[in-house]
Amino acid sequence: MTPPPAPGPTGLITHGPADLVVTGCTALTHDSRGEIVFVDDATVVVRDGLIASVTAGDTGTGTGTGTGTGEEIPAVERIDGRGTVALPGLVNCHTHTPMVALRGLAEDLPAHAWFNDWIWPVESNLTERVVGLGARLACAEMIRGGVTTFADHYFAMDEVAAATGQSGLRAVLGQAYFSSQGPEGRAASLDFALRQRGAADGRITTCLAPHAPYTVDEADLAATAELAGEHGLLVHIHAAENREQTDNSLARHGRTPIEILERAGLLDTDVLLAHATGLDTARDLPVLRRARGRVAVASAPRGYLKFGWDTTPVRALREAGVPVGLATDGAASNNTLDVWESMTLTALVQKYVERDPAWLTARQALDHATLQSARAVGLGDEIGSLAPGRRADLVLVDVTGPHTQPVHDLAATLVHSARSADVRTTIVAGRVLMRDRRLLTLDVPDIVGELSALLPELVDRSHGGRIQEYEG
Amino acid sequence: MTPPPAPGPTGLITHGPADLVVTGCTALTHDSRGEIVFVDDATVVVRDGLIASVTAGDTGTGTGTGTGTGEEIPAVERIDGRGTVALPGLVNCHTHTPMVALRGLAEDLPAHAWFNDWIWPVESNLTERVVGLGARLACAEMIRGGVTTFADHYFAMDEVAAATGQSGLRAVLGQAYFSSQGPEGRAASLDFALRQRGAADGRITTCLAPHAPYTVDEADLAATAELAGEHGLLVHIHAAENREQTDNSLARHGRTPIEILERAGLLDTDVLLAHATGLDTARDLPVLRRARGRVAVASAPRGYLKFGWDTTPVRALREAGVPVGLATDGAASNNTLDVWESMTLTALVQKYVERDPAWLTARQALDHATLQSARAVGLGDEIGSLAPGRRADLVLVDVTGPHTQPVHDLAATLVHSARSADVRTTIVAGRVLMRDRRLLTLDVPDIVGELSALLPELVDRSHGGRIQEYEG
Repeated sequence: MTPPPAPGPTGLITHGPADLVVTGCTALTHDSRGEIVFVDDATVVVRDGLIASVTAGDTGTGTGTGTGTGEEIPAVERIDGRGTVALPGLVNCHTHTPMVALRGLAEDLPAHAWFNDWIWPVESNLTERVVGLGARLACAEMIRGGVTTFADHYFAMDEVAAATGQSGLRAVLGQAYFSSQGPEGRAASLDFALRQRGAADGRITTCLAPHAPYTVDEADLAATAELAGEHGLLVHIHAAENREQTDNSLARHGRTPIEILERAGLLDTDVLLAHATGLDTARDLPVLRRARGRVAVASAPRGYLKFGWDTTPVRALREAGVPVGLATDGAASNNTLDVWESMTLTALVQKYVERDPAWLTARQALDHATLQSARAVGLGDEIGSLAPGRRADLVLVDVTGPHTQPVHDLAATLVHSARSADVRTTIVAGRVLMRDRRLLTLDVPDIVGELSALLPELVDRSHGGRIQEYEG
Repeated sequence: MTPPPAPGPTGLITHGPADLVVTGCTALTHDSRGEIVFVDDATVVVRDGLIASVTAGDTGTGTGTGTGTGEEIPAVERIDGRGTVALPGLVNCHTHTPMVALRGLAEDLPAHAWFNDWIWPVESNLTERVVGLGARLACAEMIRGGVTTFADHYFAMDEVAAATGQSGLRAVLGQAYFSSQGPEGRAASLDFALRQRGAADGRITTCLAPHAPYTVDEADLAATAELAGEHGLLVHIHAAENREQTDNSLARHGRTPIEILERAGLLDTDVLLAHATGLDTARDLPVLRRARGRVAVASAPRGYLKFGWDTTPVRALREAGVPVGLATDGAASNNTLDVWESMTLTALVQKYVERDPAWLTARQALDHATLQSARAVGLGDEIGSLAPGRRADLVLVDVTGPHTQPVHDLAATLVHSARSADVRTTIVAGRVLMRDRRLLTLDVPDIVGELSALLPELVDRSHGGRIQEYEG
C-alpha cells in the first residue's frame, strides 16, 4: 500500500496536477462573517472533488492554497471563465423531482382540487419507470439551471437515487410516507435512508420523510423523531404549508402544525420544514426559537403566488435564527425547478409583503441561495461557499449578455438581471455536468421520448382512486 | 409603371416566391372571438412584411391564403420551426430603453430616494451618445427576449428612433416633457412626433409624452390633449404610479391623477397610462368607463414588487373594458426588459393579490401578452396576432428543453415554464433579427464597450443637480 501524499497547509493534497482549474472568472466568496465578497479575475482550483483554492489571478491574493496564478497550475481539465461569475451551485431545498412528469397537468386550481381531483388520483398510477424517468428529466433541468444539490421527498426513491447517480448531482433523499400506510411506510423510509446513505460516491445523503402533520399522526411523528435521533438522520417534512392548514390544525387539535411537531419531539432533531407559509408567528416563532434541533425552512415562493397563499415569513424566521433555503417544490404545482427564479422571487416578494424596498437586498438573496440553503439541507459545512475544503460544487454564470450589461452592482446583476439560462457550466464534486450549456451526463430527447410514451397511462383518472384525501 | 400583381382572396399578393416561410411549428393564433387556438404543424407564410397565411401543414386547414403545405411554397428564406411555438412578438408597452445604462445603479431603495438621490441627478448628465448606445443595448436585450415592439418614453428620442431603425424593431416613441421646461418641452414632443411618424420604413409610430400629472400641470395637459386630437396622436403618460401619488394628488388638488387627466381632456384622446397601481378604484373606474378616447394601461409588475407597491388592478380594469398591456418600465428600476417575465409575473401576482388561483389563467396571460398589448400601444389592428394581413412580427420559442417537457397544456408551458431565453428566433416585419439566438442587426460587445467608457461621467453626482424633484 502506497502512503498518501503529504497534505498542504490546509490539509489538502496540493502536489501533482489539479483535477480542474477555472481561470479568469469573478468568484463569489464569503468572508469570515459570511458576508459576500466578489474576487475579480479569480482562479478556482479543484482537487479530489474539493475546492483547493480560490485566488485572485493577478495578485495571488485570496483564500486557499493555490499558487495565485492559474496559468501556472498544471491541471487535467481547464475552463476559461472569462465573462462569467463562479458561484456555489444552487441548492433546491425541497422538491419532488419525478413530478416533472405532471408539469402543467393541473393548472389554475386551488389546493383542494389540485390534490384531490388531479395529483393524488394520478399518483395512484405511478410506476418506478415513470419515477426514474421523471427524476432524470428533473436532474437535466436542474443542471441546466445551475442547481448542484437537491432535497427530494417522494416515492420509489431508489429510482431517484439511481437518477442522482447517473446525473452526477448531489442530493438529500427521503422516502415519503403517510400514516395510512401503517408502520410499513415509516419502516420503508428508514430502510431507504440507511441503505442509500453515502451512495453515488458519497453525493447522496438521506433523511426520513414523513409527509406532513396532517397526514402523519402524532405517534408516527414521535416514532420518526426517535429514529432520527438514533440514526443521526435529518427529517424532511411539509409543515404549515398554508394558513388554512394551520387554522384546521388549531380547530382539530388545538395546536398549530409546528406545535404538533414540537410535541412529537421532532424539533429536538435536525428538521427541514417545507413551506411554512402558514406559520402562526405569535405562537410558532417562540417554539422554533426554543427548538433543540437544527430547524430550517425551505421556501418555494412561486407556488405560493400561484395558489394565492401567503409566502414564507422570511424576515421573522431570519430574526428567529432559522435558516431559510430556496426551493421550487415539484413541477406539478410550480411548473419549473428553477431555483434561480426562486432567488429572484424571494427578493421581490419579500420586499412586497414587508412593504420595504430596503429589505431582502440582492446580497441577502444570495445569502439565502448559498450559505442558508446549504445549512437548510444539513450540508452547511460541505457546500454553499467557494472555500478551500468545501465540495467543488460550482456554476459559471455568463454576465456578458445584453440583459446583464452594464454591471454597476454585481449582486443586483445576479439576482435581478441574470437568469438560470445564463448558467453556462455546472460542476459537482469537481466533475463537469454541463459545459457551455451542453449536458454531459443525461440525454434529454431519449428521456422525454421514453417518458412521453408512458403519459397516457399515467394521467388516466378513470379508476376513481387517489393515494390520499386532502383536507389540509 | 408596372401594374401591381393581382391580389389573392384576402387582398394579399400571393404569387411569386414568399419572402419567408416557417414550417413545422405550433402556431398561437386567435379565433374570431379572440380566444387562443394552437395550430399544430403549422406553416407561416410571410410576404411584404405581412403574414400571408397560417395553415396546418398536413391538412391545409387554418386561416389565410396559403396552399396548406409549407414544403411546396417557394420562398426566399425558410425556417424549420420544429420543436418551437410561433407566437406574436411580445410588446413592451412602457419602457425607457436608454435607462439600461443605469441597470443596477440604485438598488433596494424607496421611490423617493431612487428618484431624488440617484436617477434624476444622474439624468442631468445624459448625453445623446449615452441615449443612443443605451437604446441599442436595450434593443439587443429585447430582441433576445422575444420583444418585437416597444413603447418608449424618454429624452433625446431621435437617438432612440435611430436605434430602432438600426435594430429592426417596431416602436411607439414619445419625447418626454415636464412643465418645468416651459412650453418648449411640449413643442419639442410634438415636433418629434410629427417628424418621426412613419420612420424606419413605417415601423415607428409616435406619440406625445407628458411625464406625469404630478410633473405636468393641468394647462399643459389640456394643451397636450388638444394637440393629440388635432394630429391624431396617442398620448403616453405615467399615471397613478403608486397609491402615494394618488393620496398626494387628492390632498393637493382634491382629485385623483385619473380625474386630473379627465378634466384636462386627455381621456377624450387615445391614451396609454403607465402603471396605474395607485388607482382609487371607487373613483377612477367610473371615470375610465366613461372615457371617450381609447384608454389603456401598461403594467410592469416586477418593479411594483421591488418598490413594495400595490400592483395594477388588472381584474377591475378588465371588467371596466380597459386593455392592460405588459411592460417592463426602465431597467434602472426593473433591472430587465424581459416582457416574458412580465407575463409570468402578471399571472402569478394577480392570482396572489386576488387570492384566486383560478383567476388570470395561462390563456388570460397570453391574451395580455398578445391582443391586449397590441391594443394598448395603439396597434390593435396591426400586430398582436398571427393572422393574414397583420405585420409579420413573430417569435419562435423552443419548447424542447428539459424545463418545458413534457407538455400537458401548452399555454401553461409558455407562461409558467418557458423563459425569454427560450426564444430562438425573432422576426419583425418579416425580417429575421435573431436566428438561433444569434443577433443579426446589433453588435453587443461593441455597444457595451463604447457605453462602458462613458459610465464614470454618467454616474457622477458631484454636481448636486437633478432634472426634477420627486414629491410623488
